[in-house]
Amino acid sequence: MSRTTSAAAFSLACALGCGPRPSPAPDPLPSWTAGPAKNAILDFVLRVTQDGGPDYVPAAERIATFDNDGTLWSEQPMYFQAFFLFDRVKELAPKHPEWRLKQPFKGILEGDLKAALASGERGLAELFGSTSAGMTTEEFESMVKAWIVLAKHPRFKRPFTDLVFQPMLELTAYLKANGFKTFIVSGGGLEFMRAWTERVYGIPPEQVVGSTGKMQFQNIDGRPILFRLPQINFVDDGPGKPVGIQNWIGRRPIFAAGNSDGDLEMLEWTMAGQRARFAMLVHHTDGEREWAYDRQSHVGRLDKALDEAGQKHWLVVDMKQDWKTVYPFEK
Amino acid sequence: MSRTTSAAAFSLACALGCGPRPSPAPDPLPSWTAGPAKNAILDFVLRVTQDGGPDYVPAAERIATFDNDGTLWSEQPMYFQAFFLFDRVKELAPKHPEWRLKQPFKGILEGDLKAALASGERGLAELFGSTSAGMTTEEFESMVKAWIVLAKHPRFKRPFTDLVFQPMLELTAYLKANGFKTFIVSGGGLEFMRAWTERVYGIPPEQVVGSTGKMQFQNIDGRPILFRLPQINFVDDGPGKPVGIQNWIGRRPIFAAGNSDGDLEMLEWTMAGQRARFAMLVHHTDGEREWAYDRQSHVGRLDKALDEAGQKHWLVVDMKQDWKTVYPFEK
Repeated sequence: MSRTTSAAAFSLACALGCGPRPSPAPDPLPSWTAGPAKNAILDFVLRVTQDGGPDYVPAAERIATFDNDGTLWSEQPMYFQAFFLFDRVKELAPKHPEWRLKQPFKGILEGDLKAALASGERGLAELFGSTSAGMTTEEFESMVKAWIVLAKHPRFKRPFTDLVFQPMLELTAYLKANGFKTFIVSGGGLEFMRAWTERVYGIPPEQVVGSTGKMQFQNIDGRPILFRLPQINFVDDGPGKPVGIQNWIGRRPIFAAGNSDGDLEMLEWTMAGQRARFAMLVHHTDGEREWAYDRQSHVGRLDKALDEAGQKHWLVVDMKQDWKTVYPFEK
Repeated sequence: MSRTTSAAAFSLACALGCGPRPSPAPDPLPSWTAGPAKNAILDFVLRVTQDGGPDYVPAAERIATFDNDGTLWSEQPMYFQAFFLFDRVKELAPKHPEWRLKQPFKGILEGDLKAALASGERGLAELFGSTSAGMTTEEFESMVKAWIVLAKHPRFKRPFTDLVFQPMLELTAYLKANGFKTFIVSGGGLEFMRAWTERVYGIPPEQVVGSTGKMQFQNIDGRPILFRLPQINFVDDGPGKPVGIQNWIGRRPIFAAGNSDGDLEMLEWTMAGQRARFAMLVHHTDGEREWAYDRQSHVGRLDKALDEAGQKHWLVVDMKQDWKTVYPFEK
């Protein structure tokens, strides 16, 4: 039932005699500062859920997609999955003496990230193959689950999953309560995310889209397994995001949120559909509570998408101004 | 609420005084003959939904996967998607005079299917590339939607979507009503299926897993499109099915239904999990109302999986005996 219908039903009931008026519904976005950003979100959700209204969208088509790194949780000083990969390199290094001479492993082991990153895509593929493949899907899931509860962010000295954005938790819950199906669409590793996204965000595994490696089914003496091969299968970033959305979801979102140029094509794809739709960017403007970065950043660069958001009047959320709370632990 | 809790609540209410007893719940599977097959399904659903019972499975983990061709609808005399491909070949042939000399096109145009099929996987890939790629995802969807309402099955002279199995429509609805999330996991083309599966089965696009071609995001003068490339990306059949399940869904099903050796690995993967789970095969035994085939069939061969189902006591549904109705139009 839409808000309006619900209000009408209530008024009718009261006309027939009723008790004290109930208090107004609690604010669904309490960590958002009152103002244009918050109003734009509330207004959009009201419009698309208003049965009979000009912008009404049936619940089945209320698909919302969220980037993860920098949109649902922080991504500095580097993507949090990189901390996992680096910890795996350190753990496995004693068995790989050759890594002391080979990038990106050498740089990671010596703390020279610049040298490690200079190995580029070839280096990333080798890093993935050496640390995240050569095991079953269940073994990988257990490994991520064990790491994510123990590892600590270097600045905050807290588990990485403490660094999720409280306003975005409220936003995804608000959309879900209004009949939206919320998906993560991230460049991060699909199985890396699925190991904790349901617990942390309430988003189930089947609503997570991400980068994947190749897998192979094997039947080992009657025990079927899925073996993770050391090859990258799909990169869900930039122009890959609309491809991932089509492949996994098969519907065009009506709401998409990102924070970097890697999300631009997802926002373009979302906004190119018919009828009411909504695109937003989280702009990292808060160097004190979180980080401040955009056009010059190596991680999460926001340049072209910021220009396009300005031209097309997409919502740009100013973290410093629009968010009363950044992390749940501040409350 | 589980059936048992619900019944207990009702008894309690009646102990406090109540009106006439309501009539028993209607049969959720009216097209299934009373007997062991129907009982096995009802018993499994009761067990996994009985809150506090030893086999209870939380709703979020109630994932059910269904093969499509031969499991949810018929697949004879050939997969229905092949009729679409063949119609496309005939439509496009005037622009491709070279097809008169080249398999599989030549065989399709001359009605010599044996010659066409002899071109094997290479032929299938060329057929896919020539008929189903080189256009946007939206153009392909429109094309399938137009075809599926007009094309007729050669034996029944009815739209192909009339040849869905009434007992399976009841089964998927029954599982859904009991908190299951139902997925199609098919070797068929993902986008071919998504163009009609929501309308026909009530299964939304994001719950369809299938074979895919490669896609590319393009921005044509500010208009973003997804272009279908003429290369096969993923084949969701046989050992590909557990890979597809992991990739799209990320949870192991607790219920899986198939009808051929191409479903064997999906059933093995499903049954290898912990706790209560269910595997079933539709055995095509009804040459009068549908078709009768198994070990020797070229389409939907059921040989190895039939043996394994016997050894492992998976449910084998005898279509002739266990289904009162095959197609909805019989009713």
